[in-house]
Amino acid sequence: MKKIFHITDKNMINAVLDKAEYGTLAVCNENIPYAVPLNFVRIEENIYFHGALKNKKMKMIEQNPHASFSVVESYSIIASFFSSSDGLACPATHFFKSVSIDGVAKVVQNREEKAMMFEAMMQKLQPEGGYKSFNDEAYDKALGATAVVKIVPSSMTCKFKFGQHLDKERFDMILEHLKERNTEIDNETIEMMKGLKDGI
Amino acid sequence: MKKIFHITDKNMINAVLDKAEYGTLAVCNENIPYAVPLNFVRIEENIYFHGALKNKKMKMIEQNPHASFSVVESYSIIASFFSSSDGLACPATHFFKSVSIDGVAKVVQNREEKAMMFEAMMQKLQPEGGYKSFNDEAYDKALGATAVVKIVPSSMTCKFKFGQHLDKERFDMILEHLKERNTEIDNETIEMMKGLKDGI
Repeated sequence: MKKIFHITDKNMINAVLDKAEYGTLAVCNENIPYAVPLNFVRIEENIYFHGALKNKKMKMIEQNPHASFSVVESYSIIASFFSSSDGLACPATHFFKSVSIDGVAKVVQNREEKAMMFEAMMQKLQPEGGYKSFNDEAYDKALGATAVVKIVPSSMTCKFKFGQHLDKERFDMILEHLKERNTEIDNETIEMMKGLKDGI
Repeated sequence: MKKIFHITDKNMINAVLDKAEYGTLAVCNENIPYAVPLNFVRIEENIYFHGALKNKKMKMIEQNPHASFSVVESYSIIASFFSSSDGLACPATHFFKSVSIDGVAKVVQNREEKAMMFEAMMQKLQPEGGYKSFNDEAYDKALGATAVVKIVPSSMTCKFKFGQHLDKERFDMILEHLKERNTEIDNETIEMMKGLKDGI
């Protein structure tokens, strides 16, 4: 995909990771890949998730810790006629933000780091609070019975695709069509298109 | 994950695949996995996607055709206090539908099958129409310059997680909290919870 879509601003990348309810982990053993969606939280550079102690992904990670992790923030589907009047389907596309991480998965054994991960996960997914701190010993048994994994990234790339590659005429045609269709996600897409065009 | 979440009804599985705007493909080479999101279409049992002729995923598929594909339909985040009053975070969860496919990726060379795939993809993502049929020779060059891949599944599993494992008291507590929070996705979650509870 064209360089024009690549985002390097750390805050913009982190915002995608911190808004996403889930991402998809890929692991593999003996040339067989496995894709599995999971809730996660970013802490600094690392991606954390949790799960059962001995399920398929944990067994695969023990055999081979290499991991790839994908997060998508989906925006509008762009119909072919939004940006072209030649009647061909080719311009049809989908606007999105995505983050792609390659790295190594490490099983977290330490109670303190496990507790930190769950605090961060809850702050992300239940910001309204209403639960005891994970320092409470009431969690000891549950923490012991739950696997926590940290993906330490070796590379992280981010793409925003919002029509930045198009000439002004086609870009503006898309804006007009989105305004007309006027769904909630279309309005969010319009904001993103305008922001990127302004160099934000 | 518990058997109670597993869905075997073909129509229910296909509905998830046919509604999803994208899925995440996992492939691997030499023990390094790669997760990549993509638009796709289901035709009968198979998953089709398209892309550049020579990008990272195409090169990896040529080396090793084993593929795993994950699709998620995300529903409400369920706060811990929605189903429990003990103040612990543990009951916090996320309701979802997911489909997980393992199989083999095959590159489609045939113009007719490529055209069929693009017709199906457009019908899925641009149901309002407004484009010429892919039988038109105006597409010959574009079809030649685009890779089409079919994943032929060896296994397909589907999970719906909507609190089916909970006792009536906790299930009803969640329903009440969702009604009170009353977002669009909460209302869709309520409909799914009621439907599954009624054995639909």
